[in-house]
Amino acid sequence: MNRVGPLDGLTVIDLTRVLAGPYATMVMADLGARVIKVEMPGSGDDARHFGPFVNGKSAYFASLNRGKQSIILDLKLKDDRVVFEDLVRKSDVLVENFRPGTMVKLGYGWDDLRELNPTLVYSAISGFGQTGPYRNLPAYDMVVQAMGGIMSVTGHPDTDPVRVGTSIGDITAGLFGVCGILAAIMNRNRTGKGMMVDVGMLDCQVAILENAVSRYLSEAEVPKPLGSRHPSITPFDAFNVNGEYLVIAAGNDGLFERLCQAIGREDLLADPRFESNDARTQNSSPLKREIEKALSNRTAHEWLDIIKKAGVPCGPINNIQQVVEDEQIIARNMIISTQDPVAGPMKMAGNPIKLSDFPDPPTRAAAPELDADREDVLKLKKV
Amino acid sequence: MNRVGPLDGLTVIDLTRVLAGPYATMVMADLGARVIKVEMPGSGDDARHFGPFVNGKSAYFASLNRGKQSIILDLKLKDDRVVFEDLVRKSDVLVENFRPGTMVKLGYGWDDLRELNPTLVYSAISGFGQTGPYRNLPAYDMVVQAMGGIMSVTGHPDTDPVRVGTSIGDITAGLFGVCGILAAIMNRNRTGKGMMVDVGMLDCQVAILENAVSRYLSEAEVPKPLGSRHPSITPFDAFNVNGEYLVIAAGNDGLFERLCQAIGREDLLADPRFESNDARTQNSSPLKREIEKALSNRTAHEWLDIIKKAGVPCGPINNIQQVVEDEQIIARNMIISTQDPVAGPMKMAGNPIKLSDFPDPPTRAAAPELDADREDVLKLKKV
Repeated sequence: MNRVGPLDGLTVIDLTRVLAGPYATMVMADLGARVIKVEMPGSGDDARHFGPFVNGKSAYFASLNRGKQSIILDLKLKDDRVVFEDLVRKSDVLVENFRPGTMVKLGYGWDDLRELNPTLVYSAISGFGQTGPYRNLPAYDMVVQAMGGIMSVTGHPDTDPVRVGTSIGDITAGLFGVCGILAAIMNRNRTGKGMMVDVGMLDCQVAILENAVSRYLSEAEVPKPLGSRHPSITPFDAFNVNGEYLVIAAGNDGLFERLCQAIGREDLLADPRFESNDARTQNSSPLKREIEKALSNRTAHEWLDIIKKAGVPCGPINNIQQVVEDEQIIARNMIISTQDPVAGPMKMAGNPIKLSDFPDPPTRAAAPELDADREDVLKLKKV
Repeated sequence: MNRVGPLDGLTVIDLTRVLAGPYATMVMADLGARVIKVEMPGSGDDARHFGPFVNGKSAYFASLNRGKQSIILDLKLKDDRVVFEDLVRKSDVLVENFRPGTMVKLGYGWDDLRELNPTLVYSAISGFGQTGPYRNLPAYDMVVQAMGGIMSVTGHPDTDPVRVGTSIGDITAGLFGVCGILAAIMNRNRTGKGMMVDVGMLDCQVAILENAVSRYLSEAEVPKPLGSRHPSITPFDAFNVNGEYLVIAAGNDGLFERLCQAIGREDLLADPRFESNDARTQNSSPLKREIEKALSNRTAHEWLDIIKKAGVPCGPINNIQQVVEDEQIIARNMIISTQDPVAGPMKMAGNPIKLSDFPDPPTRAAAPELDADREDVLKLKKV
């Protein structure tokens, strides 16, 4: 196992399943932490059974659980509870994403855990958090995307609702979880005292709404979906070039001037409808038409070269194949591989945190088979 | 200033502008770090000039920069450089989100900074990262959303492209940045040595694609936008109930059974098209029609009560007003306020990291006026 990273020496007991929790512990494992997945007998983490499969192994599970260890423990059996409590005493962090109340029912609420190990950082990631009227309700990504507002500002006006095409509700909760856990560990290293970190997916959705919230709270304007354009910067949109799309983000007057020159439409600079960013945002539709007209005499690829040379931020709308094959993505080691004992070599997205003092290995340890690391885990020593 | 949090004692020099960098330092300020914004003379952080405005103060800037301090320094002037270098020597972290090369041109590349302060953690957040063929290209959120693949899986099939309605390219880079910075600080606390943390927005987009990447890399299937439904879990979608929408996420057979009972359609359980999650995903359109037919005799609100009581994850699609007024969001202190010296009381999204050992104040210190904290910052002492 590769544990060479800034979190080397940190031991994480990982009771998480599916996505939000496993994403958090994946980030920590990528940074060098030792992550011990404690799984239920029988089927283990639900995500082991989510497609797509390679030789019967879930590619989804494999990508989220690389570099972790696995042990089966039945937290309802006395002997296994003894083992679990020993692990808790010897670890730095415990992460779970059960529904609130589950840990208390198991006898492992925060009061029990802190008694077992006063230096433990305990992170609970849940749909709605550990408090408030909805705390006991079940939630999946879809539910918090809907309730948290992001779906109300994503998509085209007057069409059916659109879900963000990745589980941003789970993933942002995982990332905020890591931030909270590491901050709590830093505090513990100073005070000798652990604490509980309570992260709710719905809260995290509110925390990422940025200008939609500031617009509503300052102007009482309820933001609506705007397709591909930005609510307050123009031109900052996708443009149709003979059936292909490219995006252009001319975030200020200087960039707009360069764009107009690059596309041979300096006349737009003299048009009062487009004289300032505010004016351009008011008149985004006619401006879009003018730009698309100007772009119609070349291919999207040719225009990207020209607009890029002019120093204006722009790019293609890549599909996943194009992303995976993109020279920058490859140069940045963002597609890594594992050697899976069952599925063989597997490729997956890499770690976006690049550190000057640690390598960013192009291969990582595979996700564990269920209970694969029992012996090694049972030898765990208190650091 | 409120510095009561796990990062109390940590000093961050913040050269960031607009969103990705300021989001990272906001998370750290919310957790108790002292964040000192070093701004250019004249206009300061560009986001000070982004609408919406309240009494001339940018609500957007105010929400991202609460609880930080501000000092003006011109890094091209000798005297100001002396002050800046003194701050670098006395700080723990420096964060910037300039285009790669800018810091080197100023004479403050990583080699210069580490010479000034070998314990410094230096985080550079940029569009494409510090390496690779695109490193010098300009990028905004829109560009990395397009190039990073999320736009190719968001929206309805066969309509114009859709941008995620919040700047998820900036925000995820900010969050990964915080994870990297805190991990590097933990490493420094053990080794006495700082390091550089290089985060590229495009990399972060790849890191959040989850099942889209695993589907492509394991099955060579290029994922497409799917409107509001999930690619591999069904029913997990938005449903139209007489013109209003609700979402239902029945993530497994047990939940599907409970859903069918709740909506009076046990007959669907016997239908071979819907007998397993895979079968339901294959037949998602007919299943959606059947469910919408069953829901047509009550209001969305009534159905949410019924489906919720059945224990099936579900929810309304809230707009931003409904989010801000939601009882759970309020109970979780996710709408906080500041007392702005210019704009008066301002509301904004709160901190989703809830800690057992620190308060989660409903009011936070306001975003600073330009250069407001000069005197206090000049008194900075090495911790």
